[in-house]
Amino acid sequence: MRDKLPSSTTPFPPPNQVGESPRGKDLEHAAAGFLARQQRLRALLEARHIPLILVTNLVNIRYLTGFVGSAGTALFGPRQGLLWVDPRYTLQAREQAHGVEVVEEKIGGLKGAAKWLAKHSVPEIAFEASHLTCTNFELLRTQAGRTLALKPAGDVIEDLRVVKDRGEIEAIRSAGKVTAEVFSDVLSMIKPGVEERDLASEVDYRMRKKGAEGAAFETIVASGSRGAYPHAHPSSKPLQESDLVILDFGAILRGYAADMTRTLFLGEPNRRVWSLYSSVLMAQRGAVKSVQDGIKAGDVDSVARSILAKRGLAGYFTHSTGHGVGLEIHERPRVARGENTCLRAGSVITVEPGVYIEGLGGIRLEDTVLVGPEGPEILTPASLESWVLEVRS
Amino acid sequence: MRDKLPSSTTPFPPPNQVGESPRGKDLEHAAAGFLARQQRLRALLEARHIPLILVTNLVNIRYLTGFVGSAGTALFGPRQGLLWVDPRYTLQAREQAHGVEVVEEKIGGLKGAAKWLAKHSVPEIAFEASHLTCTNFELLRTQAGRTLALKPAGDVIEDLRVVKDRGEIEAIRSAGKVTAEVFSDVLSMIKPGVEERDLASEVDYRMRKKGAEGAAFETIVASGSRGAYPHAHPSSKPLQESDLVILDFGAILRGYAADMTRTLFLGEPNRRVWSLYSSVLMAQRGAVKSVQDGIKAGDVDSVARSILAKRGLAGYFTHSTGHGVGLEIHERPRVARGENTCLRAGSVITVEPGVYIEGLGGIRLEDTVLVGPEGPEILTPASLESWVLEVRS
Repeated sequence: MRDKLPSSTTPFPPPNQVGESPRGKDLEHAAAGFLARQQRLRALLEARHIPLILVTNLVNIRYLTGFVGSAGTALFGPRQGLLWVDPRYTLQAREQAHGVEVVEEKIGGLKGAAKWLAKHSVPEIAFEASHLTCTNFELLRTQAGRTLALKPAGDVIEDLRVVKDRGEIEAIRSAGKVTAEVFSDVLSMIKPGVEERDLASEVDYRMRKKGAEGAAFETIVASGSRGAYPHAHPSSKPLQESDLVILDFGAILRGYAADMTRTLFLGEPNRRVWSLYSSVLMAQRGAVKSVQDGIKAGDVDSVARSILAKRGLAGYFTHSTGHGVGLEIHERPRVARGENTCLRAGSVITVEPGVYIEGLGGIRLEDTVLVGPEGPEILTPASLESWVLEVRS
Repeated sequence: MRDKLPSSTTPFPPPNQVGESPRGKDLEHAAAGFLARQQRLRALLEARHIPLILVTNLVNIRYLTGFVGSAGTALFGPRQGLLWVDPRYTLQAREQAHGVEVVEEKIGGLKGAAKWLAKHSVPEIAFEASHLTCTNFELLRTQAGRTLALKPAGDVIEDLRVVKDRGEIEAIRSAGKVTAEVFSDVLSMIKPGVEERDLASEVDYRMRKKGAEGAAFETIVASGSRGAYPHAHPSSKPLQESDLVILDFGAILRGYAADMTRTLFLGEPNRRVWSLYSSVLMAQRGAVKSVQDGIKAGDVDSVARSILAKRGLAGYFTHSTGHGVGLEIHERPRVARGENTCLRAGSVITVEPGVYIEGLGGIRLEDTVLVGPEGPEILTPASLESWVLEVRS
């Protein structure tokens, strides 16, 4: 069950600025945003009777403080907010991190935290069991004080992240816009003879040129029979006439990802391909339409799955319908069979049914979708209709 | 202490083809390479009295089998070689993975493995404690059979990976060549007014155009005072006259990374900057020269550190001298104070001393270095001398 969060008169939590080192007034806004998230965390900790939480998931540290380094350990309690970093990150943490005291530790963040816990004879902390390795658990057990009780916290902060605040939504919207624009821009490049890999680099380059920090994941270009692998790496295979071509990519802006897939056909599709494409399109549209405040994520999956099943394609849809997206490309909730998490206004998910047929290839259609106060809003507004590309001989 | 590996008449283990789906004769070569690695693993398991090892580190799965999916769990024993994947990866695993039986599991790789272990009443396995979360440990404990003893394996496979085979070295050499070439190619772009971010995208784009699968990590371009952050993200800051500009990047080829840093100065450096640059250069050259079969990694660090210390710069060198590089950008051994791992012919490390001064910026010089049978070989052959760039007004 989802814990109650502090209520708000607007459908989304207060605005927040994210991204690179802001200055002056922006800095105050940014600080306010991170402090608001920490307040939401503290309310949730109190509701769940968690006195102190050790945060080892770096994405969660970024979410709560703004610190984007590749190493660090944080601790939050009713009054505490501490961030231990090694000397590589001291300056950066002092500039970026809000609402925490930054402590430099040559021995590393986790050992620094263990030392602090031992020194203060802390009796109990909760830890992120999905983001602590057995090795590091052992380190805590041996170095953080003999009487310290270590309790799995559950994914408390991931739960907070399911509902995005306005700053986050703006960031994802910008990322989606860049993603959709780049798709339109590269359409003219998609023709026989172009290598998958070159098309992928072009996509990445253009996203950066439009202000993206980078690609949210390795851009997928999978053509012909290679498209039957839902997670193919782009290869040196040239596109060919009569190929189905899957493009799956997304930009990162101010730390936030978008995720979009389009499938194209080079030449004149035969009846089977037409029928497969229109089935996937119907499944995608149907599932997007079902995205509403309060619906279970698993029900969105069922919508897509049952549309494909009616057309005899259930067996070719070999993955789940989608996933949450935000600071991470895959985050909560899973949009999958049996997933009981309810979508809320402010949740952002992907909807991406597909069919994969050995020998023929794959068709997948995906948008990043915001659960808006009045229904779904597609954040990756690129056409799903112009999928047949004429091949000139 | 390092376990003895099967001896070989050549300084490097037998050749191996890596990278995208090979065909025909190449396929046989590739298969032979992966099987050879599995043989080395089995010899090491026997030496360490480990009956079965559960492999949850995906990089290790790739190393041993060639499978490059983002999810999967493997098990190796004297006779067993099993790989559990979810349906997204079945086709891909069957094509890519060598020396293992691929098992499709809808419930996911780890649960599949747990089910198998329970069904076969396996009494004991070793697991990768640094690559298993507390959550997944708990899953194994509850689902893999009540009598199963779970023992941390130590980083057995990471130990194997310290010595690269010929195929791996060739891949890193190719990645280093692309990296160095791209540096030369972008030199003419490095001038006042160019944004850090645009320079970074140019670097990434050109690496891809030269055949790289991508960047081994987010390309760093950090100029002026931002260079004082050893891991700065490229920003929209334009380069300015009198900036020190750090470029830290590397290509991935056939899965293997190179890593190189160069620092440039825009305009006429003053005496202090000259002196700092020549100190770092001396430290880097001295440390590279010390890279030999049999030397402790910690001693390479000491060489760099003592050269900087003699010039009063010890306090400004705030990180370790380097790290192993291969399938991962950071792998064993650490080239750091007190690191007792001995470098061996076939090890590949970075050597990257630097100084970071708040307000002024940073200077870091880095090469990827192979421990060759006759001494160090620099795999990122780009000039360290042409660091002063004339600024035309």
